[in-house]
Amino acid sequence: MKHSRLVAVLALWTLGVAADTTSSAVTPAMVATAQKLMQHARSANTGYAIVESLTTEVGPRLAGTAAEGRARQWAVARLNDLGFHNVRVEPFVVPLWLRGIERAEILSPFPQPLTITALGGSASTGPHGVEGEVVSFDSLAALEEAAAGSLQGKIVFVDEVMARSRDGSGYRVAVAKRRQTAFTAERLGASAALIRSVGTSSHRFAHTGQMRRIDYKGQAGVPMAALTAPDADQLRRTLSRGVPVMVKLVITPQLLPPSESGNVIAEIPGSAAPEEIVLVGAHLDSWDLGTGAIDDGAGVGIVIGAAKLLLDVLPHAPRRTIRIVLFGSEEVGLVGAQAYAERHAGELDKHIIATESDFGAGEIWRFDTGVADDKVPLAEAIGALLLPLGIEPGTNTASGGPDMKYLREAGVPVVGLKQNGWDYFDLHHTPDDTLDKIAPDALQQNIAAYAAFLYLAAEVEANFR
Amino acid sequence: MKHSRLVAVLALWTLGVAADTTSSAVTPAMVATAQKLMQHARSANTGYAIVESLTTEVGPRLAGTAAEGRARQWAVARLNDLGFHNVRVEPFVVPLWLRGIERAEILSPFPQPLTITALGGSASTGPHGVEGEVVSFDSLAALEEAAAGSLQGKIVFVDEVMARSRDGSGYRVAVAKRRQTAFTAERLGASAALIRSVGTSSHRFAHTGQMRRIDYKGQAGVPMAALTAPDADQLRRTLSRGVPVMVKLVITPQLLPPSESGNVIAEIPGSAAPEEIVLVGAHLDSWDLGTGAIDDGAGVGIVIGAAKLLLDVLPHAPRRTIRIVLFGSEEVGLVGAQAYAERHAGELDKHIIATESDFGAGEIWRFDTGVADDKVPLAEAIGALLLPLGIEPGTNTASGGPDMKYLREAGVPVVGLKQNGWDYFDLHHTPDDTLDKIAPDALQQNIAAYAAFLYLAAEVEANFR
Repeated sequence: MKHSRLVAVLALWTLGVAADTTSSAVTPAMVATAQKLMQHARSANTGYAIVESLTTEVGPRLAGTAAEGRARQWAVARLNDLGFHNVRVEPFVVPLWLRGIERAEILSPFPQPLTITALGGSASTGPHGVEGEVVSFDSLAALEEAAAGSLQGKIVFVDEVMARSRDGSGYRVAVAKRRQTAFTAERLGASAALIRSVGTSSHRFAHTGQMRRIDYKGQAGVPMAALTAPDADQLRRTLSRGVPVMVKLVITPQLLPPSESGNVIAEIPGSAAPEEIVLVGAHLDSWDLGTGAIDDGAGVGIVIGAAKLLLDVLPHAPRRTIRIVLFGSEEVGLVGAQAYAERHAGELDKHIIATESDFGAGEIWRFDTGVADDKVPLAEAIGALLLPLGIEPGTNTASGGPDMKYLREAGVPVVGLKQNGWDYFDLHHTPDDTLDKIAPDALQQNIAAYAAFLYLAAEVEANFR
Repeated sequence: MKHSRLVAVLALWTLGVAADTTSSAVTPAMVATAQKLMQHARSANTGYAIVESLTTEVGPRLAGTAAEGRARQWAVARLNDLGFHNVRVEPFVVPLWLRGIERAEILSPFPQPLTITALGGSASTGPHGVEGEVVSFDSLAALEEAAAGSLQGKIVFVDEVMARSRDGSGYRVAVAKRRQTAFTAERLGASAALIRSVGTSSHRFAHTGQMRRIDYKGQAGVPMAALTAPDADQLRRTLSRGVPVMVKLVITPQLLPPSESGNVIAEIPGSAAPEEIVLVGAHLDSWDLGTGAIDDGAGVGIVIGAAKLLLDVLPHAPRRTIRIVLFGSEEVGLVGAQAYAERHAGELDKHIIATESDFGAGEIWRFDTGVADDKVPLAEAIGALLLPLGIEPGTNTASGGPDMKYLREAGVPVVGLKQNGWDYFDLHHTPDDTLDKIAPDALQQNIAAYAAFLYLAAEVEANFR
């Protein structure tokens, strides 16, 4: 099915036909302009310059910190310099969680340090730490089956391995482990929890990430940290010796009063229907361990780079307004996304279509839609124009990206320009998320695709709603 | 020249001739036995079990620490269990240098943390650290040309990049940078020094290693740390903005009174000439950041695994004694090697030939010799038997390995079973030096080669001296 659709689209492309005859909304002139944008993307350098600048001049920018504030200032200055309109910050507040000391060691039988990192939102062990015997489980499901009280005073270790895939599908299972372990461990009487790092790297980097919902209500869960893959292997081997394994864990994160965060917005006002919005997002915050290059400096570079191409190449703005939203506080629970949806509740019905770039810097290989059934042909007609970039037609099950959650739930149509995530979880949320991991060529392919998509979505008369 | 020699050897091999007719010392029966050993190596698992055990049950084992002492106890127990003879520790003392806090940050213009590690033997900044403007040099040579007093109060940054190669030749230049920078910086008035990590990895691991001779006499040098490659890139980019870059460095290593270290020795006593020694070494200590898997747990596994094959496969011991030496305190300046040479000065003339495995877990690709010119044919005759393992004949310039330095200088002939070091410096001296990086198949190829070599060197009547 997918293949036959691909063949059909290729045939149409070869004939110079505007992809799908059911959606005459895409005119030959638009096709030519989209092609011109894709061509110009090859020599455009704004996207890479943006991610270079953000990762160098701001670096790590955890939600609610002064660094995230500097990122907003940086974004406002850059977006103004580049010639965007209506550049502004929409502030909100977010609980501020700050990493403290993090240290772990095997006390016996084989004393040695372990490399860990605290998970976002974790409780503190206090400076003296927690000591206990390790009880290992191969999965979260296995932990959940443990008898009540059976883990009294123990340190739980969930050694579940994440699967690698192009579409990142292994992450869902891994996030369940990250989200649930501390609470299940608490219910079973454990004093702390360790998990094998979410992620696919065999390098010795621990992977952070939020371990609970941002509201911090109810249970706090036990203090919880992630072991790097080699350290999880080491602990597994140590446990295999069949003698009790005692571990000490010291993590001292602090939960501080709510602090300022914000979304940064910039626009290319529409020339004919400025009240209609094509939204393109990325998130400005990052975890604190790396410099947030692939997560999500790349997305920031892609969406700004693509929109800048429109400013540079088009003789006049497209019909609809293109709105760039750089979300704040995505990592700690989509807080910026929720703030945006609340603040703009009154105009969500004017959001014609929305999407986000937040899956690294790999090339886009598929164009997914998330629109009403009768709008699929229109969306596909646009997606089909991306075929020369190596982007296949996908399915109508797009999420649009993490920060699109509340918009999607409110009925805003979305698309997903799906990147190859094969290596994404080697770097994501680790200290190794740094600029050198971004291939400029792959970034330009993304920019070409976003530029063409944004132009067409904002220019066609037909509506996705 | 090398190629024609290879062809000649291949031809001899094909004819079933014992490699080199000028050295009839290697008999057809010996060739058959060597082949049998190589065949058995494919299913032998002692080597991998040894490195698994050492890295798991001891882990990091810095020179002079209690962990290095546990490694000696571990080695004595394992070597006795495996059936070796004359298993013993030869103790010596070593200055004890312990890593403390290590923290660095860019203060301005773009405040953010930097990932560093202190270099072995470095002075301390004290707990309050050192702050200063960074002055960058592309190489040690460039630093050495700076004017006297021109770096007063500055933090020197030497951003020299190490070249990757199969034979690890880039390491020599990189070590000069690591050894000299702190002293040149001190002479020029600087208050601290940073170097781009020695090594070839683009991952965010800082690389430690000794920054001065172990005697600690004379100058202490300025406090000195290595930046990971991504952090060196980040600092370089920050400097490229053309404004002063202020950095804070806090490292608090301690130099403690000399502490006990030691070499662990085990033997297969010779059946005909037990006083003649074929020495095979590896080093037992490791840096503190990783678990010392490739440096040098792999070597420990290879030499023990190979010698164990001889115990298991041969009907009786070879003519000469095979002596395994697991050197202590190699990393901090070949202290165990020197202690061994001093202690055994009276019998060095009975050391017929010596070699060490200390270049990771990659496959051996070349057999080098370091013998008197008239003994080259004999050594090559043995080396030629390793051809079926993919091992080419090399040159007569072998060092034999780091711990062979004093033996070689005392006239002991050496050989070098040269491993492919293409990836070695991606891991070496970093936290990422862990067991998972060892490919069991490559380890077995090493064990096959060492087993054949040890057997033949100990069995031939001809002498390498």
